[in-house]
Amino acid sequence: MPVAQRNKLKEKIHEVIFEADTPMGKAFDVALLILIIASVLVVVLESVHNLQTRYSSFFYALEWGFTIVFTIEYILRLYCVYRPMKYAVSFFGIIDLLAILPTYISLFIYGTQYLLVIRGLRLLRVFRIFKLGHFLAEADTIVKALRASRAKITVFLTFVLLLVIVIGSVMYLVEGGQNEGFSSIPRAIYWTIVTLTTVGYGDITPVTELGQFLSAFIMILGYAIIAVPTGIVSAEMVADMKGIARNNTQACRYCGREGHADDAVYCKYCGERLN
Amino acid sequence: MPVAQRNKLKEKIHEVIFEADTPMGKAFDVALLILIIASVLVVVLESVHNLQTRYSSFFYALEWGFTIVFTIEYILRLYCVYRPMKYAVSFFGIIDLLAILPTYISLFIYGTQYLLVIRGLRLLRVFRIFKLGHFLAEADTIVKALRASRAKITVFLTFVLLLVIVIGSVMYLVEGGQNEGFSSIPRAIYWTIVTLTTVGYGDITPVTELGQFLSAFIMILGYAIIAVPTGIVSAEMVADMKGIARNNTQACRYCGREGHADDAVYCKYCGERLN
Amino acid sequence: MPVAQRNKLKEKIHEVIFEADTPMGKAFDVALLILIIASVLVVVLESVHNLQTRYSSFFYALEWGFTIVFTIEYILRLYCVYRPMKYAVSFFGIIDLLAILPTYISLFIYGTQYLLVIRGLRLLRVFRIFKLGHFLAEADTIVKALRASRAKITVFLTFVLLLVIVIGSVMYLVEGGQNEGFSSIPRAIYWTIVTLTTVGYGDITPVTELGQFLSAFIMILGYAIIAVPTGIVSAEMVADMKGIARNNTQACRYCGREGHADDAVYCKYCGERLN
Amino acid sequence: MPVAQRNKLKEKIHEVIFEADTPMGKAFDVALLILIIASVLVVVLESVHNLQTRYSSFFYALEWGFTIVFTIEYILRLYCVYRPMKYAVSFFGIIDLLAILPTYISLFIYGTQYLLVIRGLRLLRVFRIFKLGHFLAEADTIVKALRASRAKITVFLTFVLLLVIVIGSVMYLVEGGQNEGFSSIPRAIYWTIVTLTTVGYGDITPVTELGQFLSAFIMILGYAIIAVPTGIVSAEMVADMKGIARNNTQACRYCGREGHADDAVYCKYCGERLN
Repeated sequence: MPVAQRNKLKEKIHEVIFEADTPMGKAFDVALLILIIASVLVVVLESVHNLQTRYSSFFYALEWGFTIVFTIEYILRLYCVYRPMKYAVSFFGIIDLLAILPTYISLFIYGTQYLLVIRGLRLLRVFRIFKLGHFLAEADTIVKALRASRAKITVFLTFVLLLVIVIGSVMYLVEGGQNEGFSSIPRAIYWTIVTLTTVGYGDITPVTELGQFLSAFIMILGYAIIAVPTGIVSAEMVADMKGIARNNTQACRYCGREGHADDAVYCKYCGERLN
Repeated sequence: MPVAQRNKLKEKIHEVIFEADTPMGKAFDVALLILIIASVLVVVLESVHNLQTRYSSFFYALEWGFTIVFTIEYILRLYCVYRPMKYAVSFFGIIDLLAILPTYISLFIYGTQYLLVIRGLRLLRVFRIFKLGHFLAEADTIVKALRASRAKITVFLTFVLLLVIVIGSVMYLVEGGQNEGFSSIPRAIYWTIVTLTTVGYGDITPVTELGQFLSAFIMILGYAIIAVPTGIVSAEMVADMKGIARNNTQACRYCGREGHADDAVYCKYCGERLN
Repeated sequence: MPVAQRNKLKEKIHEVIFEADTPMGKAFDVALLILIIASVLVVVLESVHNLQTRYSSFFYALEWGFTIVFTIEYILRLYCVYRPMKYAVSFFGIIDLLAILPTYISLFIYGTQYLLVIRGLRLLRVFRIFKLGHFLAEADTIVKALRASRAKITVFLTFVLLLVIVIGSVMYLVEGGQNEGFSSIPRAIYWTIVTLTTVGYGDITPVTELGQFLSAFIMILGYAIIAVPTGIVSAEMVADMKGIARNNTQACRYCGREGHADDAVYCKYCGERLN
Repeated sequence: MPVAQRNKLKEKIHEVIFEADTPMGKAFDVALLILIIASVLVVVLESVHNLQTRYSSFFYALEWGFTIVFTIEYILRLYCVYRPMKYAVSFFGIIDLLAILPTYISLFIYGTQYLLVIRGLRLLRVFRIFKLGHFLAEADTIVKALRASRAKITVFLTFVLLLVIVIGSVMYLVEGGQNEGFSSIPRAIYWTIVTLTTVGYGDITPVTELGQFLSAFIMILGYAIIAVPTGIVSAEMVADMKGIARNNTQACRYCGREGHADDAVYCKYCGERLN
């Protein structure tokens, strides 16, 4: 095959696999999406004892089927991309590899069921496929809001972590003696997190009166501080949605009206050039 | 009866049943509201064993009473509406039919108690009756805010779903062997959802130390990400309430750039008049 | 005592009891606050079995002491107020009466412990005493925000109620047969509310696979819709805090600047009269 | 050592210990951060029975190691600071002392395990070390938002406390007789807080029908009022983020009216110039 033809084939494959604007590319992405979901479903169902004993060989066949398809896809991706190494070490490249490896390893080492869960990461590919629609833009907005509030959330989580350790230690001292559930500080910290996040399993509960009194405070505290991350993200999203943070206060020289975006060069009301 | 008279009657019935501005229409709507609530109450109370055994025939009579009244109402609706078929296949038309069918079917097939629940949908009619007040406008605001954030919420829920599957699988691997509650991935996923949403029944709880450690992370994660849907809806409502001009998607004819405010008359980048 | 002197005394008492600006009035309010808290504390502690058996007569004496003090206070209020009847039938007048009645009734009817709880309402007086500080203004802001979002919250709660009845009925059908906890629709509705509000006691939990599957959906639903009331209140508070909802768009005729409050008569930037 | 040299040494130590801008200061802060975390980890692990019995002497050695290092650090801080007494009675000065005292006390009094928890406060030093990055500014934003909403949150928590007492008393009356969990009002209040904050352990649950009915209301109430603190904090953060001019409290000299925006130059009611 001459180089020109080979390059054309490469380009064609690249278009189908990596892009989603052409009908072929779109069809490929949808098919892949379905395959991934089906593949994850098989792993999930395999873990159910009843189904595993009955359809053992069926699951085995499916698993290998999916693995072979994904392997071919992986090789094609490596083939058609301009810089294969860069793809191979990229985030999705590693996930693509991890999504097929466990099945092969299970040939040599028995009991690689622990590695099957890595296959769950295949689903992350779904997000890439979401370039299908306008969903990516929305995901982007969320990610942007979260990234903007990253520092605030880190500070908040650090504070919660400190709080949880101190509270856990106090509860260990208060309940430790009478209550099996608070037999060590790590367990007490586990209880504190269960309580502060308002999950409240009830597997460990305070039994002393002082412990219940302190618990009540901890719960109300949790009730109050849940407002903090919510407030952070809300504020970011309000700012993002309205672009207000980026609105300035300059008035148009000609019509005197305000409310122009920071990146505005001309007045949006009269068309006059802004300063 | 001459056509003119018949039309007048039809119009009168339509006014009473479908509109709520006249005194008669208002009275009808209120009466219907009460009937629906009473009817649902009967279904609910019927399910209580003590009451069922004691007032069996009384409930039976009431049920048929309500069914007959609603049947007459349904027929009148079909009669007075200009295009009966359009009503019959509309959302509320189908609900109106489903709200009377189960009782009739129970004559032929024993044990249609499973279908009685459909009658609960009668209550959705309450929202239509809410045109009584200014509540509809408020409901509209909520629905608008939710619709505007639909894409964002879909992305968020998809992400949560992926997260839940991956976490569930990991917890299955960690706890599976020692803990009856994590005997399969679907059960582990159920536990993950119970935990991440901070419901925390406590019917399944981690018992291994690693499991409890991971759980603590999952809970704090749930605590943090609950901020996302709240932030989304808050931002939408703030935007809606203040009527702040959201950016539209039109591009300038001259410079092709987007991101103009809804009230913009001139392109903010080149000063060209927008459409 | 001449009328003028009597009126002067009345005025003095009124000043002390009803107002909080003078040193005497302030001292009275603080004393009352402490008395109310102590009185509620006694009722609460009385319910603890250990304490009740040991300090029975002590509690009895305290209870009568508080009752007599509050009775004198009630009579003085009636005496010094200009229109006693209006006070007697006002919200706080009724609470003041209900806060002393149960003790007197307990003389004639044994077992009025059920009425003692009414005394808890005495604490509502605390809010009146909060006129001591600037807290009332803040409470006002919260109440205003809640009142403004009353209609939206009513619609939301109605919707949640409908949802809860429908979901409860479905869960009753699914779990009813195998699970004691779902033995009637009211109990299933109770479970649904426990789940949807993310309380999650765990006293009733789904045991069938379909039930657990549906529960997972219900929890994620609850996770998503908790964003609605939060969004409503957040939006109201944002609007209230910044007075933006009440800002109009008129520009000053003289300096052309905008952003004036609805109640502004003069331009806040140049002092020119607005339209 | 001449005074000038001594002062130079003092300054050098001060720079290393108290500042974080020089390489040495930064290195010291990071080392301290690691030491504190390790030290807390030792206290936490010491409480685990298995580890305590096995590594008892190892933990003992580590504990004394950390204590000696922190003691030297404490003395150096006292030495290099200009006004040692001011540091000694400052917030961090007291914490620094409390972080080393328990170990010394344990020499004389056996069983000071109760005081070991004070060492957990050492972690608060982490926040001071956060001057390393831009995190302090973010923490500042959160603290500012919380401080600004302090009064509102106090009012809200007072209201919740009253609510919880009244609801607890009612539930005690309803469930008290049949349910061991509601044997006193304090226990009923504990349950109410567990429920209202949506923690929901399930260690105490209503068993009577009336009790379950009331619980459902309480949960929905908790669901609705959780929106209040969230709304408060969100609003503050939105206001803070966008730097929107909040109304100040100055009154016009001429007409005496308040409520002017921070950027107002003229009274919006009478047109008089503001200060």
